[in-house]
Amino acid sequence: MLAPTSTAVPYSVGIVTPQFLEFPEPLRLANGTSFGPYSLAVETYGTLNAQRNNAVLVCHALNASHHVAGVYADDPKSTGWWDNMVGPGKPLDTDKFFVIGINNLGSCFGSTGPASVNPETGRPWGAAFPVVTVEDWVHAQARVADRLGIAQFAAVMGGSLGGMQALSWAITYPERLRHCVVIASTPRLSAQNIAFNEVARRAIITDPDFHGGDYYAHGTLPRRGLSVARMVGHITYLSGDSMAEKFGRQQRQSQNGGDYNYGFDIEFEVESYLRYQGEKFSGYFDANTYLLLTRALDYFDPAKTCGGDLQRALAKVRASFLLASFTTDWRFPPANSREIVRALLGNRVPVTYAEIDAPHGHDAFLLEDARYHAVVRAYYERIATELGL
Amino acid sequence: MLAPTSTAVPYSVGIVTPQFLEFPEPLRLANGTSFGPYSLAVETYGTLNAQRNNAVLVCHALNASHHVAGVYADDPKSTGWWDNMVGPGKPLDTDKFFVIGINNLGSCFGSTGPASVNPETGRPWGAAFPVVTVEDWVHAQARVADRLGIAQFAAVMGGSLGGMQALSWAITYPERLRHCVVIASTPRLSAQNIAFNEVARRAIITDPDFHGGDYYAHGTLPRRGLSVARMVGHITYLSGDSMAEKFGRQQRQSQNGGDYNYGFDIEFEVESYLRYQGEKFSGYFDANTYLLLTRALDYFDPAKTCGGDLQRALAKVRASFLLASFTTDWRFPPANSREIVRALLGNRVPVTYAEIDAPHGHDAFLLEDARYHAVVRAYYERIATELGL
Repeated sequence: MLAPTSTAVPYSVGIVTPQFLEFPEPLRLANGTSFGPYSLAVETYGTLNAQRNNAVLVCHALNASHHVAGVYADDPKSTGWWDNMVGPGKPLDTDKFFVIGINNLGSCFGSTGPASVNPETGRPWGAAFPVVTVEDWVHAQARVADRLGIAQFAAVMGGSLGGMQALSWAITYPERLRHCVVIASTPRLSAQNIAFNEVARRAIITDPDFHGGDYYAHGTLPRRGLSVARMVGHITYLSGDSMAEKFGRQQRQSQNGGDYNYGFDIEFEVESYLRYQGEKFSGYFDANTYLLLTRALDYFDPAKTCGGDLQRALAKVRASFLLASFTTDWRFPPANSREIVRALLGNRVPVTYAEIDAPHGHDAFLLEDARYHAVVRAYYERIATELGL
Repeated sequence: MLAPTSTAVPYSVGIVTPQFLEFPEPLRLANGTSFGPYSLAVETYGTLNAQRNNAVLVCHALNASHHVAGVYADDPKSTGWWDNMVGPGKPLDTDKFFVIGINNLGSCFGSTGPASVNPETGRPWGAAFPVVTVEDWVHAQARVADRLGIAQFAAVMGGSLGGMQALSWAITYPERLRHCVVIASTPRLSAQNIAFNEVARRAIITDPDFHGGDYYAHGTLPRRGLSVARMVGHITYLSGDSMAEKFGRQQRQSQNGGDYNYGFDIEFEVESYLRYQGEKFSGYFDANTYLLLTRALDYFDPAKTCGGDLQRALAKVRASFLLASFTTDWRFPPANSREIVRALLGNRVPVTYAEIDAPHGHDAFLLEDARYHAVVRAYYERIATELGL
């Protein structure tokens, strides 16, 4: 196939349809138990070539899913979460690469999760759903690769929590990926990161409608707690500067000639925005999934079993790396990525690292920044050349 | 009185007793209504001299009170919140100065607030308590000064929300203070600051035990919401680095040989610390007061009526200024203090500004940092010399 040049106008992968893969064999989990049978929601874009060497796995972060690119036939607003990155002529070019998105075990967008029915009880798993880890997801993703006949990925890629999965792939299955693309991520959460996650979890767990995680049976949803959790999370995704630019101290209403309303209803635009984000999120996201995903974030720490020595944890890595971070990301700041870069260089692993001067905080990894996308595009063009795609 | 040298060993002001001052005349508020009668809890340390020119007003921040220094006779653990700053031989030396602490209107430590009984209904004010502002507090504090026969303060001083009050004093009553000491403060909250306050308020208001602010009548306390509010606030008082140093990723229990517990109970020390802070706070602080104080923070913006021009807002200032900020304070970072400094310099106001390289974040203003205390001490020694104290 003749690859389009990078100056081609990108277009979307178009209408996409998820598949649901059943896995009857239980999966061994980090917590020592086994879980299964289970099913995973999967989407693919582009075509797996005859050599089966052009597959790229894209791992999702906290509130995303297998729906990476394209739209669903029945909903023109259902654009995939990384549609600006993945598609024909886009940085991860589906004219060359076969791209796979997998909704992780425990999530709430089609894969088996806490809202799924536990076949042993006939009721939703709820609080009985096991606490899964980044490593558990990587093992489950490897099974999907097996199912699709992919022995080795051209690349595994992700941002934030997705970047942790990519990094874990390079450690856990060093022979099964040629390249590892880690964006706006970290080798471990800081105390402050964990603290924000804990605030979110407390807001959910102490909501009386949470019912110990079994709110499905009670016909309730802990929407208040989940909304507060989302609000606090959202603040950490944006930089202080971008919030200042977007909202500043702009007031929502100025019927008093700009004077304040002297109350606790919405006064400032930033309050309106956050409340809206919280309420919207609490209407579609499962609270138990939120708990699971924040805990997976907390627990990720590949250096833990090596006495905190990240270089040693990465000693068996075979993949080459692209890492990117964003200057105003205070959730996973550039120093976190630099630590991974240093540990890789210490192992003589080939690394490309881009520190992008972008104002948008952690959210920058989802946005279409020209320099950022140029770096990713160039890296995938290099992979395509290397593989003769 | 012979002033002790700065090398004297500081000692405490010792046993202190609050007074409760009654104000029968209603106070005109920024929201257009009048409020009163009301009472204010007040403490004083040191002696007002015959010239009545050695008085210093210390304004408190969100969760503090009139109890600035010393201890109560019945509780040896009841040390005042700024006891390291105020006392004999301390930076604000009570051997020279007469120091006054006032619990602000709307607070919950002895002054009239939402938990006080509304004489018209015979029930607690609850949600009917007016939304008060920094300017309202300053007017109420001026009445206290009148009552004590203080025409002009040697200084008005505060940190954080207390610093806003000090700044407001210099604008509102320019003739009534010789010096203004503003620590770790800001001329206005950023969108991110407001966002964190809004998360805290939503956690409280959406707690089913809040009952629209009238939880007193229901025999409940919105402890869950207040606890979450305190947790998120607490994170913003500490720097990321100080949290990393204090807690890192240290696990609470390691009965599994350091492995995780794979659950949502306390796993990391930082979770334990935050939960404890939240629970303790929710046991003694009034939730309605928390709402009022965060709103007073949001609303403070002296440049608002001058089209955002802070220099113009400070045009009538007569006091000299000391400002201090802390490098790792990301709640009210040094840039906020520098903005005040620039606006003052534009008005040819004498300003001393210290930017303290301290690791403790916003909380640094309450801690005993040698450089910070040396700057404050030197400034008050200058005032004492100026006044012949």
